[in-house]
Amino acid sequence: MSSWYMKPNSEADIVTSTRIRLARNIKGIPFPSGMTDEQKKELKEKIKAVITESNTPFSKKLKYIDMANVPEIEIKAMVERHTISPEFVINPQGKAIILSEDESISIMIGEEDHIRIQVILGGLCLEEAYDIASNIDDMLHSALHFAFDSNLGYLTECPTNLGTGLRASLMLHLPALEGSGEIRSLSDTVNKIGFTVRGIYGEGSKSLASLYQVSNQVTLGLSEKNAIENLKIIATQLIEKEKALRESFEKLKLEDTVYRALGTLKYSRVLSSNEMMNLISRIKLGISMGILSTDILPMKLFVENQPYMLMKKHGEISPQERDSYRASDIREAFN
Amino acid sequence: MSSWYMKPNSEADIVTSTRIRLARNIKGIPFPSGMTDEQKKELKEKIKAVITESNTPFSKKLKYIDMANVPEIEIKAMVERHTISPEFVINPQGKAIILSEDESISIMIGEEDHIRIQVILGGLCLEEAYDIASNIDDMLHSALHFAFDSNLGYLTECPTNLGTGLRASLMLHLPALEGSGEIRSLSDTVNKIGFTVRGIYGEGSKSLASLYQVSNQVTLGLSEKNAIENLKIIATQLIEKEKALRESFEKLKLEDTVYRALGTLKYSRVLSSNEMMNLISRIKLGISMGILSTDILPMKLFVENQPYMLMKKHGEISPQERDSYRASDIREAFN
Repeated sequence: MSSWYMKPNSEADIVTSTRIRLARNIKGIPFPSGMTDEQKKELKEKIKAVITESNTPFSKKLKYIDMANVPEIEIKAMVERHTISPEFVINPQGKAIILSEDESISIMIGEEDHIRIQVILGGLCLEEAYDIASNIDDMLHSALHFAFDSNLGYLTECPTNLGTGLRASLMLHLPALEGSGEIRSLSDTVNKIGFTVRGIYGEGSKSLASLYQVSNQVTLGLSEKNAIENLKIIATQLIEKEKALRESFEKLKLEDTVYRALGTLKYSRVLSSNEMMNLISRIKLGISMGILSTDILPMKLFVENQPYMLMKKHGEISPQERDSYRASDIREAFN
Repeated sequence: MSSWYMKPNSEADIVTSTRIRLARNIKGIPFPSGMTDEQKKELKEKIKAVITESNTPFSKKLKYIDMANVPEIEIKAMVERHTISPEFVINPQGKAIILSEDESISIMIGEEDHIRIQVILGGLCLEEAYDIASNIDDMLHSALHFAFDSNLGYLTECPTNLGTGLRASLMLHLPALEGSGEIRSLSDTVNKIGFTVRGIYGEGSKSLASLYQVSNQVTLGLSEKNAIENLKIIATQLIEKEKALRESFEKLKLEDTVYRALGTLKYSRVLSSNEMMNLISRIKLGISMGILSTDILPMKLFVENQPYMLMKKHGEISPQERDSYRASDIREAFN
């Protein structure tokens, strides 16, 4: 199970998690979209061999999993806990993943690019996550010939990843900026300087649970170090604005909102995924504002009660049953 | 304090309370609307003397209170607990009340008629309430000359009370009939045969807390006994329909509704009067349906957390403070 949502991290206050992703391709083989089944098989074997043969204490912690052998529910649950990308699951055939036990490291083979190295950690820790990703990159690089152009940098299927192949993202909890509507104008500003803010969980522009992902868009002509530093500056500004706005909350109204969420989570018998996310968002805010004191890890509850995570635990159940199991699991967690 | 909402009465399940009211006037004096201050004073003294001089164990339990001496908050709190009618409080000057300790008996002097005898009891007990009212009527009658016409019966200010001067009412909790919309057509039908169904608590047609008052409209050409029997038949039919409809509720959905109400009552920090009433209505339904088991008396909580009842307890507080005290008093009651 992924550890990013299991870590009682004081920094996880507003920054829920840090994600680093590196896109790499091997020279002389077409991108996955153009590969034959045989080539896909060879690619998987090749990368598996690198990990196995490197034989370091680190590589021994990694586990190779052929996606064709993973049940559908587990695949979708992996997406829910951010272990793999949603794009990775469209067709599991010819795809494999190399995972660390705590799922903080996942190397996706056969996604849009041959290799996608992902490191995801709880809280704000861009440098730490980048160092881990970079070490894996070095390990693979020493055994494989990556497609690299001395002018462009790393070559990738999609031009938006050309150069560093780096996507650094932070997941931020921004209920105050969302509630005041400021998040929209801030998104626009951040967009103009090469970063993206988008609501995760939830369709379209409406974010659920006030969780927003901020990430770099520019991968060309900028070093990894600069991209990460700039992201950190942007995020710090958003965090400061969020904190300042939270101070203007009317205390009693905030307490009421937080405790009502707690009451509903502790007592409801039917709980949809969307409602659960929004309620837990309020609990998270309550903990962060010093209103609630609990051992509950909101993001753990949040992830573990996503639809497929619930089905992984309780078996194949209907959406109606899911809402009832969700309510009962959450009641149990709080009582 | 009134006992009608304090009685853990199994009949109080759907029928919350029974109310009997008799309108009487003394011969040879104008109706209150036409009385001088001197006449009002004489009327009060006259009735006070009857009670004092009757000197029975029963009359000793009754207390005379001049309304001019009652603080405004207490007067409005008396309306909230149904001890006096809303019409009685418009101008307390020249008015008095004779009350039993538990407030189940209240004799209003100087309302629309000279004397309004009210008996209010928890649950369905029309005969018992009528007997008490009738005894008081006899006691007063023996000492006073009531305005009576051998053809019309008792004379009253408003022609709708002419005859028996009796208004018999039952307060029913009808969440299922309300939820299904059936209450409207049933009201229309009941209206046509000389009874009234109206939502109490709440303005206009929308009832709060699914509480409805059913009462007789006809006072002329019908004995008290018949009026009461007919009301009982009407109420029994409404109760049966309500019970049948409750059986069709989806169990899980009902449990969810009831427990969410409990969660909100146990955790909210700000609670308006209207929301409180609707939440307690769900608790009452939950107890009645065997979902919740609690020592809490829903109607006691309901009445004691009305605005003026709260101010009687906590002093003169703003509406905002009231919502906060209400939330905190209710949390305390449940925890």
